[in-house]
Amino acid sequence: MGYYVPSVASPERKGVAILGSTGSVGTTALALIARFQDQFRVTALSAGRRVAELKDQIEQFKPELVSVADPAEAAKLRDALGSDGPRVVCEADGLRRVASADHTDILISALVGAVGLEPTLAALDAGIDVGLANKESMVIGGELMRAHATASGARILPVDSEHNAIFQALEGHSREHLRRIVLTASGGPFRTTSKAELASVTRAQALRHPTWDMGAKITIDSATLMNKGLEVIEARWFFEVEPDDIDVVVHPQSIVHSMVEYHDGSVIAVMAIPDMTIPVGHVLAYPDLLDLGYLPRLNLAEAGTLEFFEPDTDRFNCLALAFSALRSGGTMPAVANAANEIAVERFLADDIAFLDIPRIIEAAMQAHEPGQYKTIEEILTADSWARSHARDFRPRIGATPV
Amino acid sequence: MGYYVPSVASPERKGVAILGSTGSVGTTALALIARFQDQFRVTALSAGRRVAELKDQIEQFKPELVSVADPAEAAKLRDALGSDGPRVVCEADGLRRVASADHTDILISALVGAVGLEPTLAALDAGIDVGLANKESMVIGGELMRAHATASGARILPVDSEHNAIFQALEGHSREHLRRIVLTASGGPFRTTSKAELASVTRAQALRHPTWDMGAKITIDSATLMNKGLEVIEARWFFEVEPDDIDVVVHPQSIVHSMVEYHDGSVIAVMAIPDMTIPVGHVLAYPDLLDLGYLPRLNLAEAGTLEFFEPDTDRFNCLALAFSALRSGGTMPAVANAANEIAVERFLADDIAFLDIPRIIEAAMQAHEPGQYKTIEEILTADSWARSHARDFRPRIGATPV
Repeated sequence: MGYYVPSVASPERKGVAILGSTGSVGTTALALIARFQDQFRVTALSAGRRVAELKDQIEQFKPELVSVADPAEAAKLRDALGSDGPRVVCEADGLRRVASADHTDILISALVGAVGLEPTLAALDAGIDVGLANKESMVIGGELMRAHATASGARILPVDSEHNAIFQALEGHSREHLRRIVLTASGGPFRTTSKAELASVTRAQALRHPTWDMGAKITIDSATLMNKGLEVIEARWFFEVEPDDIDVVVHPQSIVHSMVEYHDGSVIAVMAIPDMTIPVGHVLAYPDLLDLGYLPRLNLAEAGTLEFFEPDTDRFNCLALAFSALRSGGTMPAVANAANEIAVERFLADDIAFLDIPRIIEAAMQAHEPGQYKTIEEILTADSWARSHARDFRPRIGATPV
Repeated sequence: MGYYVPSVASPERKGVAILGSTGSVGTTALALIARFQDQFRVTALSAGRRVAELKDQIEQFKPELVSVADPAEAAKLRDALGSDGPRVVCEADGLRRVASADHTDILISALVGAVGLEPTLAALDAGIDVGLANKESMVIGGELMRAHATASGARILPVDSEHNAIFQALEGHSREHLRRIVLTASGGPFRTTSKAELASVTRAQALRHPTWDMGAKITIDSATLMNKGLEVIEARWFFEVEPDDIDVVVHPQSIVHSMVEYHDGSVIAVMAIPDMTIPVGHVLAYPDLLDLGYLPRLNLAEAGTLEFFEPDTDRFNCLALAFSALRSGGTMPAVANAANEIAVERFLADDIAFLDIPRIIEAAMQAHEPGQYKTIEEILTADSWARSHARDFRPRIGATPV
């Protein structure tokens, strides 16, 4: 077992802050921190509305700073914790403070949606390494994220199993030898569903993901393949590769997490059981590696068969829209992402049909003239515009396939 | 395209010597050298009996030194080449001279059998990096190979696609994080053949390998799984791992060339089309990487399915025997290897049945008391003893399965 030592002068435990500590990635990270408490300690946590769960986390992990969404909830929490408790902050400013909290070596950025961009940039500006699960911040502000990381020397490490796999497959290799990266997609619950049937799938059907247990938004994104589309955009900035050097292959077993092809024809694939503990642990401990011997091991002979298919962008138009947004560049990825967020919200509220999701994204993209952005404000302006465009979208009654 | 530059002071082409230049690996290496002649030149070549082919190679690649097996053939070749031709040497001494020829940066060691050990050690002693295709030298003299390489600082780079894959999967990773290595085996032409049927398979059937086009000896070794057994022993010394940390999985498509599992549960797999050009090119150019864009590319969606099975050591006892030889250690791997070489010779001469091959190996191993070796002589004594033991083996008439 290797123990992470941040520097020779300070043989202390790594300080970890978490944005979204009560979510799926947040609780996975905290479970690892509890298990490897000789290596990690919690500096700051943020939760949205699940304040009771946050309170339990505060008792167990004793952070110095916590944040909740609502000021009234913050005041109640302050009273409940008393003077021995951590400092309690709230709203957008609270997220920024948690992200750049003192004594933090790494921020696990695990908010869902565009709201993650600002606090993640705050961490990078403070020179804090970021374990990025909030893919939207890279999707909408990839250039900005890269620039802030370069300026402060902070690292951005991918928590997504796909990007984490690519990160690992690139290690020890020269970038000039890269031919392309290949993201794998499970294909979601509707991989074999016909286009006609897709028109009438229900929320419950869409929420039934075959291999990964995740939050509702990302599960719907997996069903539309927009999740893979967002990951393609994210990959472009994570690894600074051109859109033409990114491919997607459908792999229903979700065992090969992604691949890198080198220019001699070798393909490095990273496999593991589908358990977010592995990439979250990788990011927390990097460049050390945790011994997760307590997890079930990948047994390929037991798995038996790994299948691969070309993605069908006719049935899953979201993937083609994401590639198109990436090629348009500038604010277009922010528009595609924002329109998708609203479309998924509306689908989860039974307000629109499944196939209205790509329609809403496409309509917003067609109405948008993409500009190059220099500031977060320009991104957020495009984001807001796309959200209201997507909210205003009126689905056709008895919608037919796109 | 990256061009290899051996050192800042000498921007010259890499000098390559080849033992076994008319064999499968040798001709693959020469085809690469011809294609990338701005990066490589040939310093020395050795061939066995295919002197006419060697003559063609001499004309094309203009080595300074060549070796053939037979002194009479050497004299004839000297006359034919005249005073402008390379120096011609022969026999065991000739192999040693080719292996350690002047101006050589890397030796491709591609003889078949135990005869490769001595000249390969000569290259290591001269500080010349070795691209090792001659697996028997590592199988029988692994400790010696390691010691000689360490003493001179020369590298041993694996040409076998499996070990080359493991070498790549280890790059950029700390060895203390390693959990196990997993060698893939195609399973050979008899993967689904019953034990009863194995008793009567013919030479022609055994020579029909499903995925790789190789020489006769290694093709038979693939059919018995002894090839995988030898690779297990080889891996122990290539990567300095314990026998318990080496596993084998049958993978009929031969696309995943091998894997390394790390202690967080991640598995790094190296895939490619089954073409020896890729590992030979990797070794020739290392640490640079050739752009082999002219080869067919791996298309997983086209391949469709990758299958994995546990190896059946009941039907393929050679694999179990190899693990047992590795655990016994000392001279036992040399005995298993030598007995196998003779058994394969006898099978190819229609002298014994297919299932006599493991019987011959097992009988030699049971009759041998393994000793620790310190010198090449001790290894070669065990090797000679096992060869005569295997030659004397009398198969039962109407042999039944082992």
